[in-house]
Amino acid sequence: MSEQLAQRLCGELTKLVLVDPHTHINPHSPASKTLADIMGYHYYTELAHSAGMPKSHIEEPGLDPKTKVGRLVESLTNLDNTIQVSWLVELCRKFFGFTDDRITPANWESLYDKAAAKMAEPDWEDQCLKQSGIERVFLTNDFDDPLTGFDSSRYIPCLRTDDLVFHFANPAVRERLTRATGIEPTSPAKIKQAIGKLFEHFTKHGAKACAISLPPSFSPQPPSHLTELESRFNAAFIDQDLATTGLTSIRSQGQEFIFWTIAEFCAEFQLPFDLMIGVNRRVYPGGVYQGQDLFDQRVSLIQYKELFNAFPQVTFPISVLAQVSNQELVSYSWIFPNVVTNAHWWYSNIPTYIELDTKARLQAVPRNKQIGYYSDMYKLEFAWPKFSMYRQCLARALAQDFVVARKWSEDEALALGRQVLRGNVESIFKV
Amino acid sequence: MSEQLAQRLCGELTKLVLVDPHTHINPHSPASKTLADIMGYHYYTELAHSAGMPKSHIEEPGLDPKTKVGRLVESLTNLDNTIQVSWLVELCRKFFGFTDDRITPANWESLYDKAAAKMAEPDWEDQCLKQSGIERVFLTNDFDDPLTGFDSSRYIPCLRTDDLVFHFANPAVRERLTRATGIEPTSPAKIKQAIGKLFEHFTKHGAKACAISLPPSFSPQPPSHLTELESRFNAAFIDQDLATTGLTSIRSQGQEFIFWTIAEFCAEFQLPFDLMIGVNRRVYPGGVYQGQDLFDQRVSLIQYKELFNAFPQVTFPISVLAQVSNQELVSYSWIFPNVVTNAHWWYSNIPTYIELDTKARLQAVPRNKQIGYYSDMYKLEFAWPKFSMYRQCLARALAQDFVVARKWSEDEALALGRQVLRGNVESIFKV
Amino acid sequence: MSEQLAQRLCGELTKLVLVDPHTHINPHSPASKTLADIMGYHYYTELAHSAGMPKSHIEEPGLDPKTKVGRLVESLTNLDNTIQVSWLVELCRKFFGFTDDRITPANWESLYDKAAAKMAEPDWEDQCLKQSGIERVFLTNDFDDPLTGFDSSRYIPCLRTDDLVFHFANPAVRERLTRATGIEPTSPAKIKQAIGKLFEHFTKHGAKACAISLPPSFSPQPPSHLTELESRFNAAFIDQDLATTGLTSIRSQGQEFIFWTIAEFCAEFQLPFDLMIGVNRRVYPGGVYQGQDLFDQRVSLIQYKELFNAFPQVTFPISVLAQVSNQELVSYSWIFPNVVTNAHWWYSNIPTYIELDTKARLQAVPRNKQIGYYSDMYKLEFAWPKFSMYRQCLARALAQDFVVARKWSEDEALALGRQVLRGNVESIFKV
Repeated sequence: MSEQLAQRLCGELTKLVLVDPHTHINPHSPASKTLADIMGYHYYTELAHSAGMPKSHIEEPGLDPKTKVGRLVESLTNLDNTIQVSWLVELCRKFFGFTDDRITPANWESLYDKAAAKMAEPDWEDQCLKQSGIERVFLTNDFDDPLTGFDSSRYIPCLRTDDLVFHFANPAVRERLTRATGIEPTSPAKIKQAIGKLFEHFTKHGAKACAISLPPSFSPQPPSHLTELESRFNAAFIDQDLATTGLTSIRSQGQEFIFWTIAEFCAEFQLPFDLMIGVNRRVYPGGVYQGQDLFDQRVSLIQYKELFNAFPQVTFPISVLAQVSNQELVSYSWIFPNVVTNAHWWYSNIPTYIELDTKARLQAVPRNKQIGYYSDMYKLEFAWPKFSMYRQCLARALAQDFVVARKWSEDEALALGRQVLRGNVESIFKV
Repeated sequence: MSEQLAQRLCGELTKLVLVDPHTHINPHSPASKTLADIMGYHYYTELAHSAGMPKSHIEEPGLDPKTKVGRLVESLTNLDNTIQVSWLVELCRKFFGFTDDRITPANWESLYDKAAAKMAEPDWEDQCLKQSGIERVFLTNDFDDPLTGFDSSRYIPCLRTDDLVFHFANPAVRERLTRATGIEPTSPAKIKQAIGKLFEHFTKHGAKACAISLPPSFSPQPPSHLTELESRFNAAFIDQDLATTGLTSIRSQGQEFIFWTIAEFCAEFQLPFDLMIGVNRRVYPGGVYQGQDLFDQRVSLIQYKELFNAFPQVTFPISVLAQVSNQELVSYSWIFPNVVTNAHWWYSNIPTYIELDTKARLQAVPRNKQIGYYSDMYKLEFAWPKFSMYRQCLARALAQDFVVARKWSEDEALALGRQVLRGNVESIFKV
Repeated sequence: MSEQLAQRLCGELTKLVLVDPHTHINPHSPASKTLADIMGYHYYTELAHSAGMPKSHIEEPGLDPKTKVGRLVESLTNLDNTIQVSWLVELCRKFFGFTDDRITPANWESLYDKAAAKMAEPDWEDQCLKQSGIERVFLTNDFDDPLTGFDSSRYIPCLRTDDLVFHFANPAVRERLTRATGIEPTSPAKIKQAIGKLFEHFTKHGAKACAISLPPSFSPQPPSHLTELESRFNAAFIDQDLATTGLTSIRSQGQEFIFWTIAEFCAEFQLPFDLMIGVNRRVYPGGVYQGQDLFDQRVSLIQYKELFNAFPQVTFPISVLAQVSNQELVSYSWIFPNVVTNAHWWYSNIPTYIELDTKARLQAVPRNKQIGYYSDMYKLEFAWPKFSMYRQCLARALAQDFVVARKWSEDEALALGRQVLRGNVESIFKV
């Protein structure tokens, strides 16, 4: 009964055209060309490797796309239970006329060819977006991205700042900053000036958000030792062999200075600052490309207390990597006006956790402060299956907790669903 | 099917008259007088603020009750999804003849007036308790409360000790202690003597529990440096500018000494010691009144190992703020005879978390060691909707995990439900 | 509907004969002789104690088995809600013709006698295994176990190494090592040599795994100060009064050296290394036998980063004690080829947590990397009710998340269920 109700709600929610508020789409090549682009998504390569396929087999230099797909298909027999592989099958059924339930050594070649033909159609990008019910897509842009050559009414720039905060010691990063801004970042004041230039550039080109991913240990404090940062500039920002851990270290102060400067410009330029909290990079350096990061669940939003208090005028859409962080996210969003919940990220982006997290958010966070979902996709084809998964979870939560338990009408429940799916994306990011 | 079963069980459980084992009721003014008393509950002001209403708008000095309610009603449009607002609507429907599903700018004024008329009836307090199925209510009393002027067979005193442990450095607190006991607390021995007086006073007036809320960092050790505490009395108990963090600091030793002393008197006076573990105070100092506290999920009951071992004769009803702490609470209650589970506190008091936590407790903690619920209310009107929410969750757990999964009869399931709802409150607090 | 489906799947899964990959069975006395052997399981003694029975009452020296059972039965009235007591009732119904729903002071004596008669049958061990659908059972062997005198085609040895790593400072442990290997462990090199002998002995006798339980604070690093370990041998390995906490302490380095050495031999002898992560021993020293251990949820698999990277050729089946660790376990198993999920351990082994954890694992971990369950039993009679509980949870997850939500056929779902129940035990442990 409540399952049928959930399906009915899901059907209605599927009619709503969406804005996807966080992706890694390359606007110069947004859609896939072959199944290798699709199955090259790190979810498939890392799961294939985890299930036993050597990295060298997957990442062999010069591997042609079709052979690569053939190899990856071999491991699907160990992976068909995963929700990630269900995305793959769903998108093949949706877009490429695939009619089987599983991709196997026996059927993949014809699928490969049909998919290639479909994706070769000149309007594939448009078709894919249309069929997926997506009309606008946020990007993740390097800070030195020229932001030209694409339709910014469809692809909305977002200033990604990980490099500035965490890789400033890398000379290549500083050179990119100098080239992008004309300012050599040789003092805290110059760094600030250069970052200001980036914000001018991005907002002039329609950027609607600034974003960063953060390790579990990060706990930014307001910069307080500017004289020390100036006098020990190399230690704070440049020296590569410096141990960078520990809150009190000069390097941490340097990182915090840049982070805080970015937050200040978010205030000045009225950009929401997406915080993606909790990732440890390169935990498994022997893993495949983009399949090396993990996390430490011992993290708390209390680490951002000073930030949230210092910038009441900046909206912080927050994604947490650890599912155990969701209750803190719910509670901080319920108390802080400038904290909003942002989707279901990466290792938390599986139905079991989405459902629990969605239920808690819908029960305790103001409805205008919840961004339901983003796809995080690298290629357009993934918006459909990922948003479908989320809609199923959302519809189930609305059915059980609102229509059944609280006697809401289906229309009232759908209005809530539409707000978290789309309305809040528009109001929070002003798109 | 199991939903209908759950409703049937819930209906039966609703017939049971209850003792509410933890509230913030003022026994001299237990019920509300206007809807402003009800909507002034921090849940509504903090959520309204979180959803966008300036604090100044909500807490404007001299604001009359009706205008305040009118303002708060404006934000309900952003909050109607929350379980907290569902409490509000439920109680208005239960007590004030409200027949709509939502409180809106169009209907709130007549509700306000009807509610005011109802609450002006001279026996409103009795009516409210009767309709709510509540016959006795635990209080939260300041340590210097004279405990007179109210019916202590209805309102049961509870000695709240946060001020003594965490605000002893405040001269006003020490003066209150001196006035209440006639003892100036100028040495560890005098502090102990004064606290003993408080216990005498409270138990003489029918107190049935001692209580305290504790920050996530608290990890009390048995006092071991009494000579140091004596010789550095100011540093340990008085100096306001001392950094108070760190287990080894002298101030921590002072706090631990007072905490431990309270536990010793709980043993001597045979009072259960309610520990409410995990709150960080004033995380958002710009928030509305009582809407500034949050938490850090990185806390463990292992921090109380020494305490639980040192006081086998003291029962510790434990509430945890972080939902992730529930499994530890279940496990510690399953092992330690003197640890019992106590309700669903604050940020964990939403149906998603109540259901999970209730299921785990019913599956693994002896049934005589579970206090199902307390309302934590400030005004009597809230017992009804809060206990209703809990009964729904409890009934669902009993239906799914006992009647369906384990083939218990409905009567057996109801007997378990009644025990955690009422029986254990009586046996644990001896009321 | 989905409940009926779950029951149908569960019925099918029950037909599968299993290998139990982790138990504490004594192969020289695998089955119980009286109900006292069964009710002497720490779950019942610790819960009886927790519910109010004095330890002295339960562990009175010289207590005869029947009197002991009579006493424990008294406390079942406080414990019948627990899943642990449901195991007890289930096994009595399965094996001993018990037909009531509860064991009470009125019916226990006849049950005691019937059970004793059944267990006195000469082939009770065979009958019990047959009825339980278990054909092979992993043991937990002390490192100095001679491994003789039992049928190692039924009882599979497993080298348990807690004593070596955490109790090496105990002279009795070192003497046992000397006796077992003929090598006096007086230097790091000799320790390594002795441990190598143990691996030879165990693998010669058919051992299929090495195992250890680990405290939440353990975070092994590769040994790097061998010279220091040699020159400060007593401090690192022997001195009993040394504070052993702290990563940098010499004692920690000693423990890490032994642990790392064991991992090296797991690589050399191709044995999976079961890590059981997160237990604090003797948190409640006043508790009954085996009812004194608890945990600290503040633990992360990031503590094993160096280990997982250093031994890609060793499979690490991982059990976590804290339920909040499950998402890390899912994620680390999804990324690291050598990390696999291993069952539901101790305080996480209750249906509420099993269901959540099973769902997350089935949705995100390659299907060939999940060991569904082990019984952890001390006596054979417990395999049936414990595996039954797990099968119910597994069947429900398969029904809801695969057959209903993802439209899998029942056969496909059953194949997945059979793989995690049995297939992976065979492939991972090579049995």
